[in-house]
Amino acid sequence: MEKLKLGIIGLGARGYWLIENLFTYMDEIQITAVCDVYADRVEKAQNKIAEKYEKPFGTTDYNMVLDKNLVDCAVVITSWASHVKAAVACMEAGIPCGLEVGGAQTLEECYELIETYEKTKTPFMFLENCCYGRRELMVLNMVQKGVFGEIVACSGGYMHDLREEIAFGKENRHYRLEEYSRRNCENYPTHELGPIAMVLGINRGNRMVSLTSTASKAVGLHEFITEKKPDDSGLAERSFKQGDVVTTVIKCEKGETITLKLDTTLPRYYSRGFCVQGTKGMYNEENDSVFIDGAPDHWNWKKHWGNAEEYQEEYDHEIWKKYLSEGVKPGHDGIDYLVYGDFFRHVKSGEHMPIDVYDAAVWMSISPLSEKSIALGGAPVEIPDFKNLK
Amino acid sequence: MEKLKLGIIGLGARGYWLIENLFTYMDEIQITAVCDVYADRVEKAQNKIAEKYEKPFGTTDYNMVLDKNLVDCAVVITSWASHVKAAVACMEAGIPCGLEVGGAQTLEECYELIETYEKTKTPFMFLENCCYGRRELMVLNMVQKGVFGEIVACSGGYMHDLREEIAFGKENRHYRLEEYSRRNCENYPTHELGPIAMVLGINRGNRMVSLTSTASKAVGLHEFITEKKPDDSGLAERSFKQGDVVTTVIKCEKGETITLKLDTTLPRYYSRGFCVQGTKGMYNEENDSVFIDGAPDHWNWKKHWGNAEEYQEEYDHEIWKKYLSEGVKPGHDGIDYLVYGDFFRHVKSGEHMPIDVYDAAVWMSISPLSEKSIALGGAPVEIPDFKNLK
Repeated sequence: MEKLKLGIIGLGARGYWLIENLFTYMDEIQITAVCDVYADRVEKAQNKIAEKYEKPFGTTDYNMVLDKNLVDCAVVITSWASHVKAAVACMEAGIPCGLEVGGAQTLEECYELIETYEKTKTPFMFLENCCYGRRELMVLNMVQKGVFGEIVACSGGYMHDLREEIAFGKENRHYRLEEYSRRNCENYPTHELGPIAMVLGINRGNRMVSLTSTASKAVGLHEFITEKKPDDSGLAERSFKQGDVVTTVIKCEKGETITLKLDTTLPRYYSRGFCVQGTKGMYNEENDSVFIDGAPDHWNWKKHWGNAEEYQEEYDHEIWKKYLSEGVKPGHDGIDYLVYGDFFRHVKSGEHMPIDVYDAAVWMSISPLSEKSIALGGAPVEIPDFKNLK
Repeated sequence: MEKLKLGIIGLGARGYWLIENLFTYMDEIQITAVCDVYADRVEKAQNKIAEKYEKPFGTTDYNMVLDKNLVDCAVVITSWASHVKAAVACMEAGIPCGLEVGGAQTLEECYELIETYEKTKTPFMFLENCCYGRRELMVLNMVQKGVFGEIVACSGGYMHDLREEIAFGKENRHYRLEEYSRRNCENYPTHELGPIAMVLGINRGNRMVSLTSTASKAVGLHEFITEKKPDDSGLAERSFKQGDVVTTVIKCEKGETITLKLDTTLPRYYSRGFCVQGTKGMYNEENDSVFIDGAPDHWNWKKHWGNAEEYQEEYDHEIWKKYLSEGVKPGHDGIDYLVYGDFFRHVKSGEHMPIDVYDAAVWMSISPLSEKSIALGGAPVEIPDFKNLK
């Protein structure tokens, strides 16, 4: 079987990690081109790949990657601010494109993604690995089988203490520092929103119609920096616009609500807080519990903690059953293996991508729309009907 | 020591439960008057009390209770819709008043409570038992000792499956059925908001300035009724305005956010979801965890579940230490014993109430304000500065 020739655009922490831990273990691909705006990153990636395979072409200009003789497809793993530009360039060049996650910078970016796709029909997938999470897929399966009844409300969050990474990210090139200085919004909605959108059938007969967004004060990052590096005056004097906790509430056409929480600059354990509630039951990631109508001990929440494991045998999603039966490969994080595997499979087959450009646009749009709502004191903001723009 | 003569206004489920399980065990009081709009309830309560003590005066007109020769103080445990009217009557009559919890029906009720108090100076306490919860007080103690750093965001909910009670409440006199038919709002905010307000110093140098509120569709109650009693056409055909899940986001003057969730008509375990986050750590009731900055295992949230117990010895609040050292009395639920005990103690001493009329007004105001926000499609609504109305 011929290997897919892959171009990688963006070789920061995530890009390099994927090369080292995933791409160089996947049989179905051959990395033929690598690109980053920093030449040292390009060289480092080339050398890493050359340890096992032919050294790929390297460049600091992604347009040089977008050549059908060089690559069969490309993945965009750049900073948030250049995600859409690079993805649009891929589609314009007819190179099937996988785009790593993040929020959009502007609503116009979301329109541009769709317009470019509709014009070029170049295959495009949004690489939201959390849509492949074991719990997320198990809950989706339970929802589709009606276990939770009619779904009414979902919530989730990106709750991840990134203070160290934002403030002191490698080589001071970390784009997040700029984002947190410049903007105040739900800047990273898709890890939790992607799986929720699948549960609610967003872009599949349902849609999100409006949101409100509220930001707390921004004190976590500054306090962290001044305590860790009080002498770094450039950093210690920097002011941050990004509120520590941003709460966004979305209303859907079919009457469901979605609550999102961005929480990245305060100390905490990692969680995506995935919660799905229907008329017959609920799942809550915070204590990994399933509650089905009529269950005993509804006064004692501790009795339900961790019981989601008991539902795995019956309700694990086909994707995970297959994955587990094949054996979890060393060095591969499950959800990255699954999302990239799906992308490569769909590039080869030419089938419509499981997470497409409309999903990308609507999920990514939450960032600029929440920015607008926050700036307007929490006023409700309409979410465009991206599937019916004309 | 002379016993406080107590009048009880409202003898529904809550009022009768308190007589049976709390008031008839408290040495510091003597129930001298009971009142309810239903005569059978009055008789039942009189008989219950007469099993141990002198039979109290009984009436269906609460004005008959408000006589200083008959009672030293009164507690109002009526339906939500008559809470404020009865409390105002107590204050007007100069009878120190304890008011059971619930949201306000209108903003005017909140003003009326304050105006009446400022005019009469009759002692008034809002009987929010959850402010006396062991975890709530432990976390408040930790906050006041600076363990969590600067507080940034709090959340909580009234998450309690009340479908059976709302739909088929005893003797069909249940006022909640009317509330859920007639209104759509955060109808019961104070159980979670009270403790959060204490943490954030609301009315104690801080205040809540605005909110947005969003309701999901209302399907839980109707589905429950039609499946349980399909032949009860009066109920099965009743339509409900109250969304199953209402999410309210409040902004505070000092930049903190508060997220409230009302969730009472879907199947679930009980939780108040109390969560407090600061620049140095957090508490989360959903898995009863404390996380302090620098703790290990931040990638594995399960490792933190239930560890709040380990903080009890050092951080249990004085109120709970004293309560536990005295021995938990049989038949007394801790938080009810503590809140009513505090009320009676303050009536006797004449000291300012720990949860006063301003707390009541601002917490209760969330209901009509959220109703307004929901009706306006989630638009932000200002929260009056109840401490400075003039």
